Amino acid sequence: MKEFFPSISPIKFEGSESKNPLSFKYYDAKRVIMGKTMEEHLSFAMAWWHNLCASGVDMFGQGTADKGFGEKQGTMEHAKAKVDAGIEFMQKLGIKYYCFHDTDIVPEDQEDINVTNARLDEITDYILEKTKGTDIKCLWTTCNMFSNPRFMNGAGSSNSADVFCFAAAQAKKGLENAVKLGAKGFVFWGGREGYETLLNTDMKLEEENIATLFTMCRDYGRSIGFKGDFYIEPKPKEPMKHQYDFDAATAIGFLRKYGLDKDFKMNIEANHATLAGHTFQHELRVSAINGMLGSVDANQGDTLLGWDTDQFPTNVYDTTLAMYEILKAGGLSGGLNFDSKNRRPSNTAEDMFYGFIAGMDTFALGLIKAAQIIEDGRIDEFIKERYSSYNSGIGEKIRNRSVTLVECAEYALKMKKPELPESGRQEYLETIVNNIFFNSKL
Amino acid sequence: MKEFFPSISPIKFEGSESKNPLSFKYYDAKRVIMGKTMEEHLSFAMAWWHNLCASGVDMFGQGTADKGFGEKQGTMEHAKAKVDAGIEFMQKLGIKYYCFHDTDIVPEDQEDINVTNARLDEITDYILEKTKGTDIKCLWTTCNMFSNPRFMNGAGSSNSADVFCFAAAQAKKGLENAVKLGAKGFVFWGGREGYETLLNTDMKLEEENIATLFTMCRDYGRSIGFKGDFYIEPKPKEPMKHQYDFDAATAIGFLRKYGLDKDFKMNIEANHATLAGHTFQHELRVSAINGMLGSVDANQGDTLLGWDTDQFPTNVYDTTLAMYEILKAGGLSGGLNFDSKNRRPSNTAEDMFYGFIAGMDTFALGLIKAAQIIEDGRIDEFIKERYSSYNSGIGEKIRNRSVTLVECAEYALKMKKPELPESGRQEYLETIVNNIFFNSKL
Amino acid sequence: MKEFFPSISPIKFEGSESKNPLSFKYYDAKRVIMGKTMEEHLSFAMAWWHNLCASGVDMFGQGTADKGFGEKQGTMEHAKAKVDAGIEFMQKLGIKYYCFHDTDIVPEDQEDINVTNARLDEITDYILEKTKGTDIKCLWTTCNMFSNPRFMNGAGSSNSADVFCFAAAQAKKGLENAVKLGAKGFVFWGGREGYETLLNTDMKLEEENIATLFTMCRDYGRSIGFKGDFYIEPKPKEPMKHQYDFDAATAIGFLRKYGLDKDFKMNIEANHATLAGHTFQHELRVSAINGMLGSVDANQGDTLLGWDTDQFPTNVYDTTLAMYEILKAGGLSGGLNFDSKNRRPSNTAEDMFYGFIAGMDTFALGLIKAAQIIEDGRIDEFIKERYSSYNSGIGEKIRNRSVTLVECAEYALKMKKPELPESGRQEYLETIVNNIFFNSKL
Amino acid sequence: MKEFFPSISPIKFEGSESKNPLSFKYYDAKRVIMGKTMEEHLSFAMAWWHNLCASGVDMFGQGTADKGFGEKQGTMEHAKAKVDAGIEFMQKLGIKYYCFHDTDIVPEDQEDINVTNARLDEITDYILEKTKGTDIKCLWTTCNMFSNPRFMNGAGSSNSADVFCFAAAQAKKGLENAVKLGAKGFVFWGGREGYETLLNTDMKLEEENIATLFTMCRDYGRSIGFKGDFYIEPKPKEPMKHQYDFDAATAIGFLRKYGLDKDFKMNIEANHATLAGHTFQHELRVSAINGMLGSVDANQGDTLLGWDTDQFPTNVYDTTLAMYEILKAGGLSGGLNFDSKNRRPSNTAEDMFYGFIAGMDTFALGLIKAAQIIEDGRIDEFIKERYSSYNSGIGEKIRNRSVTLVECAEYALKMKKPELPESGRQEYLETIVNNIFFNSKL
Repeated sequence: MKEFFPSISPIKFEGSESKNPLSFKYYDAKRVIMGKTMEEHLSFAMAWWHNLCASGVDMFGQGTADKGFGEKQGTMEHAKAKVDAGIEFMQKLGIKYYCFHDTDIVPEDQEDINVTNARLDEITDYILEKTKGTDIKCLWTTCNMFSNPRFMNGAGSSNSADVFCFAAAQAKKGLENAVKLGAKGFVFWGGREGYETLLNTDMKLEEENIATLFTMCRDYGRSIGFKGDFYIEPKPKEPMKHQYDFDAATAIGFLRKYGLDKDFKMNIEANHATLAGHTFQHELRVSAINGMLGSVDANQGDTLLGWDTDQFPTNVYDTTLAMYEILKAGGLSGGLNFDSKNRRPSNTAEDMFYGFIAGMDTFALGLIKAAQIIEDGRIDEFIKERYSSYNSGIGEKIRNRSVTLVECAEYALKMKKPELPESGRQEYLETIVNNIFFNSKL
Repeated sequence: MKEFFPSISPIKFEGSESKNPLSFKYYDAKRVIMGKTMEEHLSFAMAWWHNLCASGVDMFGQGTADKGFGEKQGTMEHAKAKVDAGIEFMQKLGIKYYCFHDTDIVPEDQEDINVTNARLDEITDYILEKTKGTDIKCLWTTCNMFSNPRFMNGAGSSNSADVFCFAAAQAKKGLENAVKLGAKGFVFWGGREGYETLLNTDMKLEEENIATLFTMCRDYGRSIGFKGDFYIEPKPKEPMKHQYDFDAATAIGFLRKYGLDKDFKMNIEANHATLAGHTFQHELRVSAINGMLGSVDANQGDTLLGWDTDQFPTNVYDTTLAMYEILKAGGLSGGLNFDSKNRRPSNTAEDMFYGFIAGMDTFALGLIKAAQIIEDGRIDEFIKERYSSYNSGIGEKIRNRSVTLVECAEYALKMKKPELPESGRQEYLETIVNNIFFNSKL
Repeated sequence: MKEFFPSISPIKFEGSESKNPLSFKYYDAKRVIMGKTMEEHLSFAMAWWHNLCASGVDMFGQGTADKGFGEKQGTMEHAKAKVDAGIEFMQKLGIKYYCFHDTDIVPEDQEDINVTNARLDEITDYILEKTKGTDIKCLWTTCNMFSNPRFMNGAGSSNSADVFCFAAAQAKKGLENAVKLGAKGFVFWGGREGYETLLNTDMKLEEENIATLFTMCRDYGRSIGFKGDFYIEPKPKEPMKHQYDFDAATAIGFLRKYGLDKDFKMNIEANHATLAGHTFQHELRVSAINGMLGSVDANQGDTLLGWDTDQFPTNVYDTTLAMYEILKAGGLSGGLNFDSKNRRPSNTAEDMFYGFIAGMDTFALGLIKAAQIIEDGRIDEFIKERYSSYNSGIGEKIRNRSVTLVECAEYALKMKKPELPESGRQEYLETIVNNIFFNSKL
Repeated sequence: MKEFFPSISPIKFEGSESKNPLSFKYYDAKRVIMGKTMEEHLSFAMAWWHNLCASGVDMFGQGTADKGFGEKQGTMEHAKAKVDAGIEFMQKLGIKYYCFHDTDIVPEDQEDINVTNARLDEITDYILEKTKGTDIKCLWTTCNMFSNPRFMNGAGSSNSADVFCFAAAQAKKGLENAVKLGAKGFVFWGGREGYETLLNTDMKLEEENIATLFTMCRDYGRSIGFKGDFYIEPKPKEPMKHQYDFDAATAIGFLRKYGLDKDFKMNIEANHATLAGHTFQHELRVSAINGMLGSVDANQGDTLLGWDTDQFPTNVYDTTLAMYEILKAGGLSGGLNFDSKNRRPSNTAEDMFYGFIAGMDTFALGLIKAAQIIEDGRIDEFIKERYSSYNSGIGEKIRNRSVTLVECAEYALKMKKPELPESGRQEYLETIVNNIFFNSKL
């Protein structure tokens, strides 16, 4: 069988002192942390699009990386080569999951959706065949309902009922493939579900139609045996001026309004969080306290830039706080999908591996350090103590919602003036994080 | 009786060709547009805080404007002088409504909330006495639960149950004063309801406690005869790193989650919209399609700056699109409160009038031009036509939610490829707005 | 001869009351304003790239508009069809200038730059032939030194000396073509002259090498008879994390440092200004007071978005303030190049015309209103008066730099406390702009 | 002598495993790194304003921290108590430098600048007396020419020549005090040197007048024996809409234009860098390659917020990259001044110490890790190798500026197509930083 990355041996854990760029320094798949192995905690996935398709094209330049894998782009031979290369890539890194859009795995026929669907049947057969006997599985799948010109005004939110039906057709096939491949989840990212200008937009109808599409998908998915989670992946803008799934709070409010909150959860992407003006941790927390933390698109943005850079995560503060939220929430039903791409000038096959090693090691460090924060206990204890006034007396009644405005007011009037609530100690708490980072334990 | 602005005569409508800075060029209170007078459409209100209290202090400088009105700051004489000056100011401008925080109208006693409450009784008596026989009324009132150090960690979201009770006590008094003054609304702006760092925050408890406070206020307010609307005023950040009422979608989701959506609406502020990454029009539209468009804080921000500048609105594009949304929604239950302050170097009494004239004329222009857009009909007709595929056939079934995924998919598979949805014509539609701006009709 | 836009008749001025979308409402080419015709003031140019090449591709979607003009993309037949279509387009709009990158007018040969150069000879001959006898001329030209993968680390700032030489070769040919076509200017936009990360960047060497390239171009250009201006077009970021020509102030400082300020001016783009955190007006003013206001890339961004949307300008506030700066500076040595593209869903040939009509009418309104502001005189008079303390006494000495710190200090110590400087009257001045907008004069 | 922080013992280095919040974990003053002690490398300074004056007031709330030090605010007794408390604070932390604005150390007399000057004489005598025999010195001083209402339109850029003279008077006294106290530097932060609206602004005159003021100060300072550096501290905005010293590149361009570049350097503030859209590292690099890296205002902003939060630095990535730049530049002529304030809810005396400990330890870690990066050598070697094509052949000629456009072009035409420049390896380089962070060496 053809080897696509012949110069790269399987990536092994070599520990923190290794200077071998093609080794893990921190990610040790079988190491047990807080009762689970690293690979159970982290469930890394490869994103088909960035890793096997994207060549470094940006709005001002052509591709710099060759993703032909020896075949002509736009053919089924190329599609299959990507499967083969992807499996080799995952196996060399020890990655067990993959994620894809339908149009990542086959070339879309521009004239007839039935042709595309036949190709999808062929390639999913091929994927099943090639992954058989391996431990590689589908984490989640989704449909690309934003690139084709027909979706220029949206998919579920399109002003064209015909286009809405094409979105439905893609979603139906996508759900069937999710079941066929045993996917744990099915994602909706509404890249064109939004508007360019309110001057031409019926926002109410668009929102209702999106809800209708989601409801139909939920019902159909359940009818064919899809037992996984549906996910919304919030993003505030880009490519549209405004996208409806602006952030987790907005998407959760939408799901509740339309009775979809039992079947849908959030797929939180780090870079989308910052584009919405939030931290990654914030979006995870909002999802978690609403019982809707599902899966994660693991990447990192640049908060000084206003677009989705989808960089490989290398900031350990961010991954530590993310893993802290995930551990506190009892883990993810989904996993950590590297919706990350190499920077355009990082255009070699080695860079593909460097990117994943960077991301996997950074999340492994995040897991190690988050577990240490929890085991250290100072931060959790501080929080517990900070709200202790709600554990008894008037506070307990407030917490239990068994008090009236009059009762609370009388309590205050009698007191005349309260003590100041104690210091928030932000600087001290940030110091603890650094102390745990720079202890000698890994 | 003492005159506070002796050099200013009542401001009159003089028409667009007047060069008298102390005249209205466009705001003609009794002029009828689309069946209502301008003053009915616009319901302008004076914000006590910016107009009668704020002196131009900013984070890097002392006040530049004298708001003493001849009395010593911090005394009840000063509080009363502000009432008198405010009434003279409103009457000279023909403004019928005012809005205030409790701490705008009396000095807060630092040691005993009962003393503050007694002052509130005295000043509200004084306001009622002084406005008797005039047409000046309270649009809405609110409680300042963010300036006092006791609220440094929040009010409803404070980690201190005692502080929560002080918030309850202020709200109770505020609701009583709302009833006493006949206010049409009662606003919650959660300036400290948020967090500085998640490292010390129990977001879930904080959110639940805010809901409890709102529920208690709703119940108490209704019990004492408050028939107006409760409003949430969303703001994403500042002073906190993150505030829970980030934007309209977030606040609406919160209200639905806690069963408060029947009694609460949105008070949308233009500058808060842009701080959240939205246009003013967007926030109005989101509120309107959820049936929660209540009132408006009329001002304008600077989208190149990252804080709340609360400038007087002078951009007619913004006010036209705002009034378009408001007209389409059937008007406001509240009104247009000038939560606007003079720029720090605009420090004279004349500037106070210039600011309001600017704002009132700019909204009057917005109303005139929004009505012309509607009467012109081209934009509304374009939108109607744009979504016409949902008026019959498969589109009508989608709109009525009487269709399945399978049915839609079969429709698409038979079609093979849809027509592209027609052009969105953004550039053309923006041209229409300019054509209506620069027609000769006022 | 083939007609490319057969459904579009030449666009005529029909006045402000016309509802014909394919007419000018305000742009009346021969109308005289402040001593010059509108077309002399405005010198509109068509940008080859957006109008004849770009099809609506964005980072998340394929093209929606057909720019084949009946020929196969990537051929010289297509290149010539674009010339023909472009001339028809310009003539139907009454546009006299065009701008282009070398790679806009011919397909680049991927293997041999000499082949590309031969194509450039052929197409520039063709352009000269086809524009002969018309009044269509080249405003400025530039070289695309950012799209080809060889420029992935920059052109003048590349880490590869070979790549630097290819940039030099393109620039040499570009300068020769500028002379051949009689271009008034030659632009450098440094889309890849910057960095992705400082971890791999020698900023000092990169900056010096850019200066070397510019110096060599200046010397060569002058040696072959290029008498026009060289322009830097500042942009802060995108596609790179950071670009060296961040804004006008930065670019001007660079030019002075390397002795290039006599030959170079600024080409200011509205959308680049806002990406740098400045207003369009600001960048024009900075350029003007440094004697370096050269040309303008006329478009508009969305200040709530963090990337270059290159929208057609439709905001009359922006164009009025821009034209105010340009009139005050005595006009442009260059012109107004529409570096603007239709929104992706505006994908028809009609939209191409709507976009230009929108832009031309918006700048015509800007010119009309800017002239009215100057003729009205209130704003200029206010400014003159505001700084009048520098016209005599100690102020005049400060203005003339004929005073010492000691002398100024003694003046102050004697005075003890100064009067407050008078109010800045921002709200009043903004009102004047609105009054001039909404007078009945066009 | 009165002790102001009786509960706090001198802060000692206890090493990384200590859990004593009131100890240094990483800052070990006498430890030698790359040939100098930590305290020589870091030269920490206490900022009078945030530490001894600021009480947590923000735009929406009153102070939460008591900075009375037992005396009545606004008195000379209070001013002296701040000196005493500050010295105790510095000694307990082992800080050797302080920085201040004139108005931080005495209350400003509102009626007569001569009274303020007399107070300055008294307090500087007091400071000299109290610091005598200690190793505490003045790092730099500055004049507050932005808070007083007289500066509402700027100081050097004021429209009032009288106000300009008051700025001159303050600067003269400030320079005299700099000499008296042996300050190493004198800073200009132009908080009001900018504009609120261009509608009322003569930018050219304002810029020239600022240059005049700086020139006069330079000349006077040198005449009285001030041998230190003058510093500009760039900031793009806040409080003004636009400030002239937008960023380092802008300020450096200004200094060159007016011949001030020999005497002035940059004082770079981390939070100002990010407000300008740059990283802290970027601003340091720009200053360094222009030979103008002088001093640093050590703090940290929040890139998701649009105002100056002036937080204590706790992000080790930022401090490591900052110290990397500083080490590469051969160190600072100034030092690291903590222009940092406790978060408003961190309102106790302990928090004052926690903040400084956080900042000092974070910079100590930054120094340790930056030195390790340099000693490790992989990053520097990568950069050196990356640009090696400029060490010989055509590249060397480019570097030496001894080549023409024609020569470079001919080189390229002969080559036909270059090799792609090698990968930038960003992901790999970021991994190295993490490996060095999480090695076991401290």
